[in-house]
Amino acid sequence: MQAPFNTLVTFRETLNAAPAIDQRACDDAQARNGQLTKPPGALGRLEDLAIWYAGWRSNPKPMIAQPQVIVFAGNHGVCAQGVSAFPPEVTAQMVANFEHGGAAINQLSAAFGAKMDVCPLTLDQPTADFTKSPAMSEEEVVTALRTGWEAVDPNADLLVTGEMGIGNTTAAAAIAARLFGGSAEDWTGRGTGVDDDGLARKTQAVAQGLALHSSNDPLEVLRCLGGRELAAMAGAIAGARHHRIPVILDGFICTAAASVLDRAAPGALDHAVAGHLSAEGAHGRMLEALGKEPLLRLGLRLGEGSGAALAIAVLKGAVACHSGMATFAEAGVAAG
Amino acid sequence: MQAPFNTLVTFRETLNAAPAIDQRACDDAQARNGQLTKPPGALGRLEDLAIWYAGWRSNPKPMIAQPQVIVFAGNHGVCAQGVSAFPPEVTAQMVANFEHGGAAINQLSAAFGAKMDVCPLTLDQPTADFTKSPAMSEEEVVTALRTGWEAVDPNADLLVTGEMGIGNTTAAAAIAARLFGGSAEDWTGRGTGVDDDGLARKTQAVAQGLALHSSNDPLEVLRCLGGRELAAMAGAIAGARHHRIPVILDGFICTAAASVLDRAAPGALDHAVAGHLSAEGAHGRMLEALGKEPLLRLGLRLGEGSGAALAIAVLKGAVACHSGMATFAEAGVAAG
Repeated sequence: MQAPFNTLVTFRETLNAAPAIDQRACDDAQARNGQLTKPPGALGRLEDLAIWYAGWRSNPKPMIAQPQVIVFAGNHGVCAQGVSAFPPEVTAQMVANFEHGGAAINQLSAAFGAKMDVCPLTLDQPTADFTKSPAMSEEEVVTALRTGWEAVDPNADLLVTGEMGIGNTTAAAAIAARLFGGSAEDWTGRGTGVDDDGLARKTQAVAQGLALHSSNDPLEVLRCLGGRELAAMAGAIAGARHHRIPVILDGFICTAAASVLDRAAPGALDHAVAGHLSAEGAHGRMLEALGKEPLLRLGLRLGEGSGAALAIAVLKGAVACHSGMATFAEAGVAAG
Repeated sequence: MQAPFNTLVTFRETLNAAPAIDQRACDDAQARNGQLTKPPGALGRLEDLAIWYAGWRSNPKPMIAQPQVIVFAGNHGVCAQGVSAFPPEVTAQMVANFEHGGAAINQLSAAFGAKMDVCPLTLDQPTADFTKSPAMSEEEVVTALRTGWEAVDPNADLLVTGEMGIGNTTAAAAIAARLFGGSAEDWTGRGTGVDDDGLARKTQAVAQGLALHSSNDPLEVLRCLGGRELAAMAGAIAGARHHRIPVILDGFICTAAASVLDRAAPGALDHAVAGHLSAEGAHGRMLEALGKEPLLRLGLRLGEGSGAALAIAVLKGAVACHSGMATFAEAGVAAG
């Protein structure tokens, strides 16, 4: 579906006009939950998840049948600063791996019944090095936002956005530092596994980016410090909201991209849950700032959407229980 | 398969003769893990899980195709002490619900591709009230252990044992207190949701049981303070080891039953992981005593095997990545 914006101004208007949760569907789902054959509250967080999902789908007894995983890929000019343990060529190599079914996200998508789409964004044209100039022009960032929005399948009933882009934890750290405050050190981690020297170069690059680009406007932060795959994830998450498709956020990079939406339009992530807590140190601080409690804590730090894809199973389990269980009356069980 | 024991003495011998993990398969799986298209360690705990699973299956590139969930049900004489929020009739009513597909564990088993078996143990004949006499005779506990052992499908490649039994958190608390030390208060919680008076009665019953039955022998503890479904879970977990089938432990009651094995034969739970941390307060303390870190922390406290069934997805995801991903060489990706 064509994105209903073509500038950052109209993108922001779109965010502010986003649909809200269906309170009546929530109430009906809550009532159903109270009648299911289990002690009250015994399914813990699964109960809250199912009711939340029902509200966004406007259906008190929903199913999850068509999850979509989209992996966006982009290249980063800031790699010139020696911020990654891997060369930039790996972005395109991994895109080929996604297309041939050989990556972790392929296995996880298949395991949990998700359709997986791969969306490389002009890999032969990295963003500008943000230590020297804005990463993207307005036209470039809007194009990436639109690409993300339009990649969402309107018939999907759950969305995971993942990413691949050598250098993109550097961009994510810079975005987080600008949006949430704190120093470059606070937000910069080892990403795919840089050594101490690499970490120092990475932290320095983030600090230089923060010094050069002083705007606090979240969409400007995305343009100046982000990357195409980060903008595309933000566009896809906003597009999912438009279609009332709940979203599972992945790790550090996905959450940084999503944070732009939250800061640009409070509540813009109400249709999203945090899939997992990444081992990338500052991810937990970012989730805390967003008020999101992760579903899984398994020490993943791969990106690609892998942690969120694993969390599809949790949400599927929650919704399956909610919609499939018998009520006390149906089962002839004494309600205690 | 017929259980190779018919007394507690021969059951203990069986435990002590249990097979060990296949170290060569672990090593081969570890070597494969290092070649997969991801930064080293980026799949976090999923990597350890896959290698552990490979070791128990003696296959460095395994699949999970046939998980089995068995829900054992039993009734408890200690219910006479007013320890539960639900009447004992609910055990049989819930067994009917399991058989008709209406319970949470039915939905979760179906969602994650597990075969589910229901195994009621003489529900019309509760165990004796352990505040007055041993819960079971030796013949009764051995029959329950054998029932559990024989319920395991030798062709399964993953086992979850769940339970249903009004009053069984009381039995589990008494077992844990005797095996791990501490007072009745330390181990007694609200189970399905007893009120303050119920909790006081429950704690009192546990204290009386501990005072009356002083043996520290783990199998005697199971006989005197346990229940048929707890003994059956212990038998099934031991049987799974015999067939080299890895096990996912469920919550408070399942873990108490499993603890009997660990204390009777150190290492008897090496083929088991903790599926989740239950909201039943003392579960975390029990897992700590066993040295097991739970896979999920979602506030469940339902039993039935529900938390462990949800964790099937985590293990499936881990093994799918391990066995399905391309190596750097296969994918033509630079290894950094």
